[in-house]
Amino acid sequence: MIIDCHGHYTTAPKELEAYRQKQIAELKEPGSARAKGGISVSDDQIRESIEKAQLKLQRERGTDVTIFSPRAAGMGHHVGDATTSQHWSEICNDLINRVCTLFPQNFVGVCQLPQTPGVPPTNCIPELERCIKEFGFIGCNLNPDPSGGYWKDPPLTDKWWYPFYEKLVELDVPAMIHVSLSCNPNFHTTGGHYINGDTTAFMQLITGDLFKDFPSLKFIIPHGGGAVPYHWGRYRGIAQDLKKPLLKDHLLNNVFFDTCVYHQPGIDLLFKVIPADNILFASEMVGAVRGIDPETGSYYDDTKRYVDALSISSEDRQKVYEGNARRVYSRLKNKIPASP
Amino acid sequence: MIIDCHGHYTTAPKELEAYRQKQIAELKEPGSARAKGGISVSDDQIRESIEKAQLKLQRERGTDVTIFSPRAAGMGHHVGDATTSQHWSEICNDLINRVCTLFPQNFVGVCQLPQTPGVPPTNCIPELERCIKEFGFIGCNLNPDPSGGYWKDPPLTDKWWYPFYEKLVELDVPAMIHVSLSCNPNFHTTGGHYINGDTTAFMQLITGDLFKDFPSLKFIIPHGGGAVPYHWGRYRGIAQDLKKPLLKDHLLNNVFFDTCVYHQPGIDLLFKVIPADNILFASEMVGAVRGIDPETGSYYDDTKRYVDALSISSEDRQKVYEGNARRVYSRLKNKIPASP
Repeated sequence: MIIDCHGHYTTAPKELEAYRQKQIAELKEPGSARAKGGISVSDDQIRESIEKAQLKLQRERGTDVTIFSPRAAGMGHHVGDATTSQHWSEICNDLINRVCTLFPQNFVGVCQLPQTPGVPPTNCIPELERCIKEFGFIGCNLNPDPSGGYWKDPPLTDKWWYPFYEKLVELDVPAMIHVSLSCNPNFHTTGGHYINGDTTAFMQLITGDLFKDFPSLKFIIPHGGGAVPYHWGRYRGIAQDLKKPLLKDHLLNNVFFDTCVYHQPGIDLLFKVIPADNILFASEMVGAVRGIDPETGSYYDDTKRYVDALSISSEDRQKVYEGNARRVYSRLKNKIPASP
Repeated sequence: MIIDCHGHYTTAPKELEAYRQKQIAELKEPGSARAKGGISVSDDQIRESIEKAQLKLQRERGTDVTIFSPRAAGMGHHVGDATTSQHWSEICNDLINRVCTLFPQNFVGVCQLPQTPGVPPTNCIPELERCIKEFGFIGCNLNPDPSGGYWKDPPLTDKWWYPFYEKLVELDVPAMIHVSLSCNPNFHTTGGHYINGDTTAFMQLITGDLFKDFPSLKFIIPHGGGAVPYHWGRYRGIAQDLKKPLLKDHLLNNVFFDTCVYHQPGIDLLFKVIPADNILFASEMVGAVRGIDPETGSYYDDTKRYVDALSISSEDRQKVYEGNARRVYSRLKNKIPASP
C-alpha cells in the first residue's frame, strides 16, 4: 500500500471560495452579524472535483491513500479575527470530512486549525477535538506563522504552544508544520514562504528542547524539510556549536520529512542524509507545481517516480510508502487497516 | 589559484564591538551629538586577528585569496537610523581596507552598505563609491531585509532598488545578497534567517524580470543558494507555471551560487543541478559553523575538501576555484592579477 501523507483539497467546488470571499467582504461591514452561514455543495459536485483530479492522479500514479487536508494557502489565518478563522476552519474541515466519507478507501482527513495571529493556540483545541473525535481525522496542519509572512507569534518551542501540544499528545495525533498564504510581498507563497517555513521550524526545534517536554509529540516537516537536508552538515554543525545532542537523538525521534521534492537529485539527497525511518512518502498533489517537467516528460510532483528510482531496500521502501505513515499517524489504522 | 568568494571579518579586534556598543548606547541618549568617532586599533592587532584565524586557515586548507567583508551578522541594519548605519558601515569598511592593505595577496575587499529599513538604498551609493573607487573593493553585500527578520522593505525586483542597481552596473561590481542579524525570535540568524534570505531572494528573482532591465547586473546568492538547488525541480516548475523562461535563460546569466554547504552530499547535489559556470568556491570561514564534523574528522566549513572530492573536469574545477570569481568580480584583476 502506498500512502501519500500530504494532499490538499485544492480542487474544491467554487462555492467554497465564494463563501470565503463573502466572509472577507463582511469583515468590512461594521455591525455585520458574523453568522457562520454555510455552503451548498452536492455530493456529486464533491465526487466530480475529486474524481477528475486527486483520485485520477492516485490511480494513474499507483498510490492508494492520501492524507487529506484543506488547501494550505487557503487557510489564511491572517484574515479577520478568531471568529473568522473559526467559521472558515469549520467549513473547510466539514468539506474534507465529506470527501473522506465519500471516498473512505482513498482519503483520510487532517484538519485546518482556527489559528489567528496573537491569539493563543489553545483556542484551536475544540476544533481539533471535533475533527479527531467526530470525524475520525488523524492529524492537523499547524501554522508556525499565522501572520502570513511577518512571523509575529512566538517560535514553536515557546510555552505559548504548550497547551495545544498537550492536546496533540493526549489525542495521539501529529501535526504537519505548514504555513499558509504569504501576504508579505517579499515571499512568494509556495516558492518562498512554504520552504522558509519548513527551514525555520526545524531550526527552532534545534535551538529548543521541546521533545524533552513532549517525548511523544510528532511533527512532519513538509516539502522535504525545506532547506534542511541540503544543509544537513550546517544543521549538525550548528547543533554541535550550541552543545545540543546529535540531531538524530535531539530531533529524529519526533520529526519527520515528507518527499515533496520535485526532482530526482533532491530525492536522492534526502534519502542519503535522512534515515528512512524519518521519511514519509508525499506528493502534495494537486498543489504547488502543476506542470510536466520537460527534462523527464512526467509531472514534477509525481514523486513516486523518484522514490521508485531509488536504490533502497524493500524494507526501507515499505517504511516510506506505508510503515512510517502508520507509525506517525497512529489513528490511521482505524480508517485504513493494514494489509493482511 | 583558489579564490574563496565569501569570508567575513568575524575575528576583528574587540575595539570594533566596543565601538558598536557605545554607538547603540548613545541611541538611547536623546540629544547626543551623533558624532562618528573612531576606533583605535593598531596594525599589529589587525595582523594578529587575521594571522591566527582566516590566514592560518587559508594556509592549512590550501586556498589563496579571500574576498573579504565585514561580519554579516554585525551589519545590523535594523539598529538606529541612517546615520547609525552610515557611521557603522564606514568604520567597518575602513577596517576591511586595512586588512586588505596589510595582506594584499590574501584579502580583497567587499563592502557593507549603510542600509536602513524604509530608507531608499540610493542612500548607499556614496559609501559604495568610496569603497570601490578609493579602496579598490570589488563588490558589496546587499541586505534584502534591512529590518532583520520582519521583511518590511520591497522585494529585490522592485524599482525601490533600481538607482542602486544602476550604480552597481556603472561600477561593474556584483552584490552578494546577504541578510544580517535576525532580531525576530522566530529566526536563528545563521540557521534560519540566512538560509531563508537566500531562498527568498532567488524566488523574488524568478517572479520578476529584473535582468531584462539590468542585463549585466550580477548577484551571488550565498550558502549554496539556500534551499534552491535542493528544490531545483520545484523552482523550474514554478517558473514554468508562471510562464517564465527556463531558469538557465531567465536567471543564470546573472545569478551565481557559492559553495558554503557543509557536507559532501549537499555539494554533490549543488554540482549535479547547477552549471559549473554558476558556482563560486567559498567557505564563509571563520563563520557560521566552527566545529569539526565527527563524521569526517574535518571542519564542517572546510568546503575545499568537498569540492576536491567531486568528479568534475579540471576545466570546471578551475572555473569554480578561480575563473568564475574573476568573471563575476571583474575588478578582482586589479588587485590579484591572473596567474601567468
